[in-house]
Amino acid sequence: MKDHEGLTDLAHGPKVGARGFWKPNSRVGVIGGHGEMGRLFTNFFKDLGCRVDIADVDTERTGREVLEDSDVVLFAVPLHETVKIIGDLVPYVRPDQLLMDVTSLKVGPVREMLRSSAAVVGLHPMFGGRIATLAGQTLVACPVRISPESWGDIRDLFIQKGIRVKECTPEEHDRMMSIIQVLFHMTTMLVGRVLRELSVDIAETMEFTSPSYRLEINLLGRMFAQNGALYSAISQMNPYTKDILSSLMQGLSSYQEWYQGQDLDAFMRDFQKSAEHLGDFCSRAYEESSAVLDFGVRLARLNGGP
Amino acid sequence: MKDHEGLTDLAHGPKVGARGFWKPNSRVGVIGGHGEMGRLFTNFFKDLGCRVDIADVDTERTGREVLEDSDVVLFAVPLHETVKIIGDLVPYVRPDQLLMDVTSLKVGPVREMLRSSAAVVGLHPMFGGRIATLAGQTLVACPVRISPESWGDIRDLFIQKGIRVKECTPEEHDRMMSIIQVLFHMTTMLVGRVLRELSVDIAETMEFTSPSYRLEINLLGRMFAQNGALYSAISQMNPYTKDILSSLMQGLSSYQEWYQGQDLDAFMRDFQKSAEHLGDFCSRAYEESSAVLDFGVRLARLNGGP
Repeated sequence: MKDHEGLTDLAHGPKVGARGFWKPNSRVGVIGGHGEMGRLFTNFFKDLGCRVDIADVDTERTGREVLEDSDVVLFAVPLHETVKIIGDLVPYVRPDQLLMDVTSLKVGPVREMLRSSAAVVGLHPMFGGRIATLAGQTLVACPVRISPESWGDIRDLFIQKGIRVKECTPEEHDRMMSIIQVLFHMTTMLVGRVLRELSVDIAETMEFTSPSYRLEINLLGRMFAQNGALYSAISQMNPYTKDILSSLMQGLSSYQEWYQGQDLDAFMRDFQKSAEHLGDFCSRAYEESSAVLDFGVRLARLNGGP
Repeated sequence: MKDHEGLTDLAHGPKVGARGFWKPNSRVGVIGGHGEMGRLFTNFFKDLGCRVDIADVDTERTGREVLEDSDVVLFAVPLHETVKIIGDLVPYVRPDQLLMDVTSLKVGPVREMLRSSAAVVGLHPMFGGRIATLAGQTLVACPVRISPESWGDIRDLFIQKGIRVKECTPEEHDRMMSIIQVLFHMTTMLVGRVLRELSVDIAETMEFTSPSYRLEINLLGRMFAQNGALYSAISQMNPYTKDILSSLMQGLSSYQEWYQGQDLDAFMRDFQKSAEHLGDFCSRAYEESSAVLDFGVRLARLNGGP
């Protein structure tokens, strides 16, 4: 990792440098290595034969010590603290290092890593730390400052494990996540809030359940079984959340207006327009979700449900 | 079906009358028999050996003719037209008949059927007309004016097919559906609207997909593959929709306020409070949804997806 030629700032045009960011004996430092995602990537690197050092709130070694001893540094810390933790360590980063992070937003963390002179790749694993296998999972990657060769070597490590690697810019990533994550998480959070505000007894609703409802309420419960700080930060900190909130508010205001005016036709037209926008996707979604729902019915019976 | 003693108004205390609403040779009239749900119940009755007559927009026989020739009349017409269609036929109903409907709301249709002097049972199948099997499905039933014995005979027919029958009053039903259907359908409709307003390309989002997102967007697409008039009417016509809309609006306003104030803690507290309200359900939901998501990943690979 002493090879400065490996560094390339894509913003200034890619330069083909010598390879070598990634060697079987690379020293990898995982900042936040005791969290779910940190443990997953620690195991990933160890399987490759790397020496992995961990810094976390409960380790003796500090983030700075681990960083200074590493060729590759991976930040796997809570989203709402990521920028600050990276920023605090940037002064100690060498140009011969590679910095990566695995947080759910990319614009902020990548911008902070670029303040160093190291190579920089932002990563967003589209899976949780508790998955059974990496095969078939998606990893979004923003190789913003690294030679194509060096990045290619790293990308291949993921691909060999069966991971799909989707490349994009940090801005493209965050815009896309404002749909995939913010829009869906925020509405799920909102539905959870309504269930609470109206004191709904979930067990009671399950007696009336359809397979769709059972699946929907299970997906809702799944979110609330997980890390509230993460889901809150994903929703709150995305630079495009403003657009999502505005569009949700505009839609809900229309619904309230149509409801008060008993304008059923307006609801039907709105439904139809959305169906047209979604197009052919809807019938494919119907087929695939039918198979999933059938599986859910069988599973529910095993679990003693309806 | 000439036995008036079979009629019991539960509102005035159940009277035990002679049985006989249901015989293998009963004449069943299905108003709206050419729709999905009408066809499903037509087959159900025919399997039991009943003679089934159908009235629909494309039949020669009118609703009145079919009704007058029937012992049991089943209304399987579009939700937003149900009350009117029942109301138009009420003058021709005899006290020795049994009226049932299979629409998604119960207060309005049942009230209209009660204007006749016939026995009345409101039904809400918690499944679509295209399901593969009735076994394991839930049927909500409001046996509002019928002797316990007669209702017991009918209920057993459903139970023998593996259907779970959940009894409640029309008011309990509609209140419960304001959660199970209105809350979930309306937010799904809202998310679909946002996808349209922001011109989101679903195929593009799928390149970034996680298993959860794939399932969520499939469930959304599933709704838009179906009957817009039905989903709109379910959401618009439920007597408790007002409460749902108010609670959604209140929640979304809070989110916007917290977002503008960059109050991440408020999001986290809200998330935590909802998680506490849902309680133990969350961990069970996590387990069950994990199995469903694993199935979804395998299915997606078969379907050429990530």
